[in-house]
Amino acid sequence: MRSGSIAFLSTTLPSYTSPVNLKTLRSSAVVVATPLGHRLSLLRNFRVPQTDRKVNKISPGHNLFSVTTTRTLTRVSASSMASSFSPEKARVPPAIDTPIPPISKFKIGLCQLSVTADKERNIAHARVAIEEAAEKGAKLVLLPEIWNSPYSNDSFPVYAEDIDAGKDSSPSTAMLSEAARSLKITIVGGSIPERCGDKLYNTCCVFDTDGNLIAKHRKIHLFDINIPGKITFEESKTLTAGETPTVVDTDVGRIGIGICYDIRFQELAMLYAARGAHLLCYPGAFNMTTGPLHWELLQRARAVDNQLYVATCSPARDAESGGYVAWGHSTLVGPFGEVLATTEHDEATIISEIDYSLMDLRRTNLPLQKQRRGDLYNLVDVQRFNSQ
Amino acid sequence: MRSGSIAFLSTTLPSYTSPVNLKTLRSSAVVVATPLGHRLSLLRNFRVPQTDRKVNKISPGHNLFSVTTTRTLTRVSASSMASSFSPEKARVPPAIDTPIPPISKFKIGLCQLSVTADKERNIAHARVAIEEAAEKGAKLVLLPEIWNSPYSNDSFPVYAEDIDAGKDSSPSTAMLSEAARSLKITIVGGSIPERCGDKLYNTCCVFDTDGNLIAKHRKIHLFDINIPGKITFEESKTLTAGETPTVVDTDVGRIGIGICYDIRFQELAMLYAARGAHLLCYPGAFNMTTGPLHWELLQRARAVDNQLYVATCSPARDAESGGYVAWGHSTLVGPFGEVLATTEHDEATIISEIDYSLMDLRRTNLPLQKQRRGDLYNLVDVQRFNSQ
Repeated sequence: MRSGSIAFLSTTLPSYTSPVNLKTLRSSAVVVATPLGHRLSLLRNFRVPQTDRKVNKISPGHNLFSVTTTRTLTRVSASSMASSFSPEKARVPPAIDTPIPPISKFKIGLCQLSVTADKERNIAHARVAIEEAAEKGAKLVLLPEIWNSPYSNDSFPVYAEDIDAGKDSSPSTAMLSEAARSLKITIVGGSIPERCGDKLYNTCCVFDTDGNLIAKHRKIHLFDINIPGKITFEESKTLTAGETPTVVDTDVGRIGIGICYDIRFQELAMLYAARGAHLLCYPGAFNMTTGPLHWELLQRARAVDNQLYVATCSPARDAESGGYVAWGHSTLVGPFGEVLATTEHDEATIISEIDYSLMDLRRTNLPLQKQRRGDLYNLVDVQRFNSQ
Repeated sequence: MRSGSIAFLSTTLPSYTSPVNLKTLRSSAVVVATPLGHRLSLLRNFRVPQTDRKVNKISPGHNLFSVTTTRTLTRVSASSMASSFSPEKARVPPAIDTPIPPISKFKIGLCQLSVTADKERNIAHARVAIEEAAEKGAKLVLLPEIWNSPYSNDSFPVYAEDIDAGKDSSPSTAMLSEAARSLKITIVGGSIPERCGDKLYNTCCVFDTDGNLIAKHRKIHLFDINIPGKITFEESKTLTAGETPTVVDTDVGRIGIGICYDIRFQELAMLYAARGAHLLCYPGAFNMTTGPLHWELLQRARAVDNQLYVATCSPARDAESGGYVAWGHSTLVGPFGEVLATTEHDEATIISEIDYSLMDLRRTNLPLQKQRRGDLYNLVDVQRFNSQ
């Protein structure tokens, strides 16, 4: 019986054999498991009997992984590892099983609204559109990005509302709450400029069928772009970015929220899918340059890569007022990346059907979640990881 | 002077104060830095003076991060952290700066070849197409997936070649090497079935302008799909999946390689971009179901999300032989997701121009790499991480 020692969590750090040259290992070793669950590479390719392992939780998500063995551990060959690609490790923490939605088939309404400088009119106008969508059977209504205000850095501070202060301070969300309750529908309320203390956000509020505010998403990725001669905009001049991805359970499924530019960051959609989302809603006001180039492409990409539904809602185009000109083209995309319903740039309400059973079908057709290579790449959802 | 102790890397694990309730910290603490560079949450929101920190490298990529301080460390407020989204942490290890390519503008040739059951004919036929592309100015030629053999599990073992055994054992790659050398071009040689020991792979070989084999990519994600009544295929019946992402520096830039189904996994493209790739080449034979639905969509998505060039090359369609029917539509996509050149399903050679200066332009227009939220998500390139 031989045993070596490869403990290295001490202030004096011993040298150790490179794993590349190591064929067998006889040792008492202490290794630290990282948040990713990788063991230190030293022990990575050795099969350690369960009885010789010990795991101590030292803090949330951090384990002290120790091996004490008197056996000769044999290096696992690449070929025998080939069948074990650890797809569950492709998402950290591992992806949550997509829950069974409370409803399998329902109608969604996308209200592509005209927006003016008159806030009261915008609110009343949106109320009418929501009601019409509900009358046509929509159980979920999605509004555009910045639907109560012109889309401009000058307007954001003027039209901003203190959502947390409640009803009187936020007529826009008060209307949404009332509409959701009285129409018994879920509303993903596009976005409005939100004032909170001395900060402004671009914020989406979600209301349940009792009119309760059940989620608030502050745009995470601010729209700062510069395509000279085409489109230049810097939201960060006035707005502060949100700090939290938002997934919310509703009567019409688990919904991940992004606002406009958030859709460019594929990581956010991947993270929502790993949190079990059925549907991603992106209120968004793409412009006349990136709209035709990327708006539909990005929606279809998020849907097909994550095998879920994607719904977007834009303001209608206003080419006359001299302000921001939105591309329009609110759209519903299915889990195979297929455009299920869309429109041009004029004001319109799209009513279309979502059938979550198609998600199961597509995930059976193309079982991507089982085919990912967690041995090669891992996407870490930092907040979900830290909360565990 | 007060100092506390929060060392917990011992066999007896002391309890410690939850960071949530901690307003100030006076301590001598030892914390372990994880591969992600997160410190344990205990110290996450404290600003530690540089002089009080010490980092010991304990193994590749694993640091022992220690803090010994007699100061009172003040918790950094959420608001003052809001401007620090750690975009560099969105990729782990941090993304490599895209290198200046050896050539900024050049022609690429995509040879969408007809493929038959006659291997010798396929090799000779490909040789002619490569030469024609070179004559038209192509400095880089891309061939289709499985261009020397019919695409079927029955054919793979029959047509497979032992690439590592060299010239006589692999007439297909011998031809590619000779063509690259004599025509002074770079060849991304589509793919062929490779035999290595008792295993078969779907393998892409890259040759430099001297005819040297400079990279070999074995398809990482095997094509196992089942869309009943449409397309069912199980490559894993005969093939073994590759173990390594492949990025290679060539005379025409840094190229990341994927084969067909590899393109469905956005993580691979993200990882290649983080390794500094200018161009992703995907030889691929999408089918008549997923071809029209997803082939162009996936290419454009990979290009626009990663702001680089994507080139694909399919076999020409053979609807007569009763075998696998390829979608065709070899395509070059630019860094804004724009289709620069494409074709239908017949045999064809596309010659089109790649201009890497457009990558810089698009990354300046939309500085995604600086806007990613490394505080919210991290993509880990496991092999690059482990090699550090």
